[in-house]
This record gives sequence, structure tokens and C-alpha cells, in this order.
Amino acid sequence: MWEKQILLLPGPTQVPPRVMRAMAAQQINHRGPEAKELLFEITEGVKKVFQTTNDVFILTASGTGGMEAAVSNIICPGDKVLIVSNGSFGERFVQICRAFGADVEVIEYEWGKPINPDDVAFHLEKDKGHLIKAVFLQHNETSTGVLNDVKAVSEARGNHPALLVVDAISGLAAADLQVDNWDLDIVISGSQKAFMIPPGLTALSVSERAWEMVEKATASRFYFDLRLAKKFYEKGQTPFTPALSLMFGLKESLKIILEEGLENIFKRHEMYKNMVWAAAEALNLEMLAPRWAASPAVSAIKVPPGLSDKDIVNRLLEDYNVVIAKGQGKLSGKIIRIGHLGYVDGLDLLAGITALEITLYRLGYDIEIGAGVHAAEEVLRRGG
Amino acid sequence: MWEKQILLLPGPTQVPPRVMRAMAAQQINHRGPEAKELLFEITEGVKKVFQTTNDVFILTASGTGGMEAAVSNIICPGDKVLIVSNGSFGERFVQICRAFGADVEVIEYEWGKPINPDDVAFHLEKDKGHLIKAVFLQHNETSTGVLNDVKAVSEARGNHPALLVVDAISGLAAADLQVDNWDLDIVISGSQKAFMIPPGLTALSVSERAWEMVEKATASRFYFDLRLAKKFYEKGQTPFTPALSLMFGLKESLKIILEEGLENIFKRHEMYKNMVWAAAEALNLEMLAPRWAASPAVSAIKVPPGLSDKDIVNRLLEDYNVVIAKGQGKLSGKIIRIGHLGYVDGLDLLAGITALEITLYRLGYDIEIGAGVHAAEEVLRRGG
Repeated sequence: MWEKQILLLPGPTQVPPRVMRAMAAQQINHRGPEAKELLFEITEGVKKVFQTTNDVFILTASGTGGMEAAVSNIICPGDKVLIVSNGSFGERFVQICRAFGADVEVIEYEWGKPINPDDVAFHLEKDKGHLIKAVFLQHNETSTGVLNDVKAVSEARGNHPALLVVDAISGLAAADLQVDNWDLDIVISGSQKAFMIPPGLTALSVSERAWEMVEKATASRFYFDLRLAKKFYEKGQTPFTPALSLMFGLKESLKIILEEGLENIFKRHEMYKNMVWAAAEALNLEMLAPRWAASPAVSAIKVPPGLSDKDIVNRLLEDYNVVIAKGQGKLSGKIIRIGHLGYVDGLDLLAGITALEITLYRLGYDIEIGAGVHAAEEVLRRGG
Repeated sequence: MWEKQILLLPGPTQVPPRVMRAMAAQQINHRGPEAKELLFEITEGVKKVFQTTNDVFILTASGTGGMEAAVSNIICPGDKVLIVSNGSFGERFVQICRAFGADVEVIEYEWGKPINPDDVAFHLEKDKGHLIKAVFLQHNETSTGVLNDVKAVSEARGNHPALLVVDAISGLAAADLQVDNWDLDIVISGSQKAFMIPPGLTALSVSERAWEMVEKATASRFYFDLRLAKKFYEKGQTPFTPALSLMFGLKESLKIILEEGLENIFKRHEMYKNMVWAAAEALNLEMLAPRWAASPAVSAIKVPPGLSDKDIVNRLLEDYNVVIAKGQGKLSGKIIRIGHLGYVDGLDLLAGITALEITLYRLGYDIEIGAGVHAAEEVLRRGG
């Protein structure tokens, strides 16, 4: 087989050859001088991507491990938390908080709708006794292609002392997120998204206010204990043997990210979003999210009446080796998702749109072949 | 720099070029057909190395994450557990069990001494009410170079229903461990040891008896919840995006392991142990472990009087790019440790012994240059 696949998932994403080569280095002593230099360099690099001077810790786990770390490090069983949920990953915060003994209150939106910051303000204003210890939400809700307005939610806290915990796993380095300027207490990222390396690392930023809660938290934790991570970081180590090959990759991918610059990266992802939206409009496909809250990292398209999500996804894989995602949970069967983040370029995406267009046509969907591709190409030509 | 380093750590260990190349493959859909085939293949391969037909789950985490999974999946807060500890990793079980609310009883040995199975029998016989839910111990205690007699400890349980949980992270695929024949309930391994891939994966085997406790356990868990792992495995997936590049590597390293065969691998590691012990004897170096309980994966040598562990380890790195480990915790400053597991061969180890001999000589230790190397070479020539 050719191994020539176009991976248009909202993670894992394709890995650049530079990063592949960097990962192919031999293992080193994780408690030696080379590992110390590596850990400091990548941690400082990740801080730049988070736009923060807060502490940042890189843990060996999937993004969900980072979400668990954010929960178990600040919760005392019985603590009240507010989860603002508009998709599958919002539900995951509910499950994790419950697993660690929190008293969970949920503001729930229809999947595909963005969060309304006024609702957060309303709930926190009602909480005169300041019982709510933390508010949890997604930056980019991977399951729906909605980008939430994290800055507005942060401002909606007003004088309420609740921490703001943001799952930015699929959004960071694709859409703007300013940890310091927006006053975000804990932000979680994952390696297999716009960081362009394979899955297995998750990074968390921790504000000073969050640290006060980390010190007092009594939920069960060991592997993800940020107090241990901090103690070992001070000597240039991690508490447990970290995924060194992924750290080698992260060092290289951070160079690529910082060479391109965050502003350019955000513009590029905006263009991808516009390409998919233009193609969808030309093909009479309906999008799940409202345009003003559409994600620059992943686009969710409603399955046209009479077609099946499985047929579309399977035929794309079989006929063209193009990989896109189906819907999750409640949206299973109802949407398909095209990931366009990290190491994907305009021509990759155009190839994916071409394959999708032909596949829809073959499955009997009534469109003019070329219409979607033409519209997307126009966006690519204009550069945005 | 040449990047030509001889890594003689008890993990991370060197990665074979075949495995490096396998890891350099592009990412795939972790919920697609290729990932399903991969997950089933490596899980079946790992079962062969564990010598088990029990369920095996591969999780994305360091080995300590696997230890936490073994604890949090079987404990209800307040449950009594017995930890048989003879080193730093025994202490880690104590910390994890306490973090998850267990009532911990410890049988503690001087570091460097092996576990006495009779002590376990004595403690379990006293427990007429069967309050002890599980017994925890290390197979190979990485911090001391002691190989515990896991089979004898298992037999020492007699009719007591306590589960036996074995940390075999640094011992598995270096020393024999028969999960089914020895009736071991939960066994934990790590990727960066004799599995010869980088850190970031941990695998656990779970017996039927252990499953009954997993279903009833009430300790906080989410990321490491084995019920989720089982549910997703049934459809050929992991609950969360796994470290795919390490899984690509594991597929290749399992081929290497099964081509060589477990019996041959164990013999090879026995030879490495004998090489180090022969060299140590010839150089009048004192070993920490008794010979009959010495590990085939890592050898701990007492620092000769008047010398410093740091000087030895640093000079080996600076002068020869040979990496060995210092002591941990209570043994800090008192021992040096030579790892000889996984993708290391007799000539690598002989080179390391040569560098150590010269370094000791330069640091003023009174030896005849060549004596240690000659003794080790004799073992290599005899093949054991």
C-alpha cells in the first residue's frame, strides 16, 4: 500500500517530517542533564503558545488525563462546581468531576450551540455564598465544531472567586487563547492536535490562584499530582519517566510553531474554516454550528437527508484514503466532521473536499460536481 | 556531537532501529479499522509476554500510571491492603494506596534484601476475617537490583482470598514471570524497559477474580478506569486517544521479542547479570543484593569507600558517554546501578564495564586495569 493518507481528523493530526525525524532520536537518561535542558526548553515554548507566564506542566497522558489532573488537583469531595457544557467533552468534565466527588451543577446547551456567557454570569451571581469553586468549559468543542467565547466567560465571572478551567485541547494553537490576558486559571492542551505531534502528552497551565486550591485539594490523586510535578520541575525533572520521544517531537514542533508565529497560524486556520464553509454552501450542505461561533479547527456538517454518515466516511476511506470523523454521542449518525488543524495545508484540505464532493455525488446526493471545490479554491486563492 | 551513547539504565532503555523506523509512521484514525487491528495485535502479543490468557489493557501513561490503575480500580476507601516493600517502588505502592484511601499495612525489608514469602504467609494467616483485600509487591525492585520470588509469595497466600498485585515494570521480559501459572491477579508492565520502546505506555493484566473487585471498587478513577478500557476494547478501541506512535513501536518490538523467544531472552539477561557480578568480584566491588536474589535486569553496586557516586556517574558520562544510574531515596550516595535489560547486548555491556573500570581507576580506586573486563568477557565467551 502507498501509505498516502489525508488525515482530516480533529486529532490525531498529521506529523511533519521534521518532527518525525526529531522523534527518531535514541532515548536518554530522563534524570540527566540532557533531559533537564529539554524539559526546560519545551516548557518555555509551551508557555509561549499558551500566552502565559503561569507555571506549565507537561504530563504523559492523553488529553483526558490532563482534564482529570485539572479536576483532581483542585477538588475536595463535596465541592460545588459549575460545568458549562455544549458537547461531548463538556459531558466528559461532568463525568470526571463526579468521579472525584464534586457536587456538579451543569449549564447545558443543545449540541452545536455556543455557550452564552450571560448564563454563566447569572449562575455565579445567584451563588452569593461563593460555594462554586470552579467553572469548567471547552474552548473548542471538538464534538460539534463550536468555538466558545472563553474571554467573555472569564469576564462573566465578575467578582466571583471561582476558578476558570478551560479544556483547550483541540483549540490551542488553532484559535487564539490568551491565558494571562483573559485571566484563565487552568488551561489544558493535548499533543495530537495543533501541536502536530502524536498523542501521549498533555500540558496544563496553573495560575497562582489555582495553586492555592491545588495545595488544599483532598481528592485522590497521585500520578497526576501537580504538587509532585512542581517539586520535580524545580530540579529539571518529571516525577515519573516521561514520554521522551514525544518530548523530542514537541521540541521540534514548537520551533515550527514559533517560526510561523501564532498570528499567522490563527489566520491559516481561519482560512481552512472558510474553505469548508464556502464548499458547504456551494453544495447546499448544512453546518451544525452558527457561522459566528464556527471553529477554525474542525467543521461539523449535517448528514444530508437520505444519506448515512457511515457510508460517507467509509467510502472516503476506501476510495480515496481520506479520513474524516463521524459524530459522537448524541450526534452519532447526524454529522460528519472535517478536522483542519495543525500540519494540514490548503491543498490537503482541497483534496479532502474534492473527495467528499465526489463521494456525496456517488452516494446519490444531487450536486454539481466541482461546485464545492471551486468555492473552496476561491477562498484559498484569496488567502482567507 | 556523535550521539553515540551507551545507555545502561534500568529504563529508559535503548530502542532498536527496527522499532524506531516503525514509530516513524504517520498517524492514523484511532477509532478506525487500522487502529483496531493494531490494538488487537499488540494486546495479543503482550499477553504472550505476560504468559497469560487474562484480559490485558494497554494504557497511555508511565509505569506509575499503571500502578495507580492497579490501585484505584480495586480499592474502596478504608479497605485494608498489605504492601510487601523492599525498595523505592514498594514505597510508591504505599503512597498510591494511601492517596486512594486504603488502610495500609506494610511488611518492610532493608533495601537490598529480598522479600521473605513466609512473612506474607504469617500476615495473611493472622487475618482470619479476610480483611486484607490485596497484597502488593515488586517483581524486580528497580531501586535495589533485587528479584523477588513472586511465585513463592503467590503460594504463600494459601486460602486467603486477597488479590496479588505485582509491579513487573522493570522485570517483565527480562526475568520469568508466569501470570497464569503463578496465579497473579494484576500485573503491571512499562514500555521503556525490556519491551524496548520509549516510555509512555503501561500494560496491565487483570484476572477474573480481580474483575470482581474492579466492578465493586469505589475509589476515584476516570482516566485509568479499567471498566472503560474493557468496554472500548470490545469494539477495538481505547477510551481516550492512545499514544499511537508508541503502539506502532510496540507492534515491532513484540515481533523482535517473540522471534527471540522468552526462554532465550531470560538466558541472555542472566548472562548480563553474571557478567556484572564477575567483573565486580574481580574488582573487589561489593554488590547490594545477595547473589541468589540478584536481578537479571539491573545490578546495584555499592560505592567503594572514599569514592562518590556522583563522581563515578558524571565521569562515565563526560569521558565515555556511558550512562548508568545513581541510588534513589535511602540508597542515594550509597550505590550505583547498571541497567542491562532490553536492547543491550554483551558487547555494549562489556564496553560499559570497561568505562567503569577505567573511571574507578582514575578516581583513585586501587584495581588492576583489565581485571573486571577480563572476568566479564569470560562469562560472555561461555555464553552465560
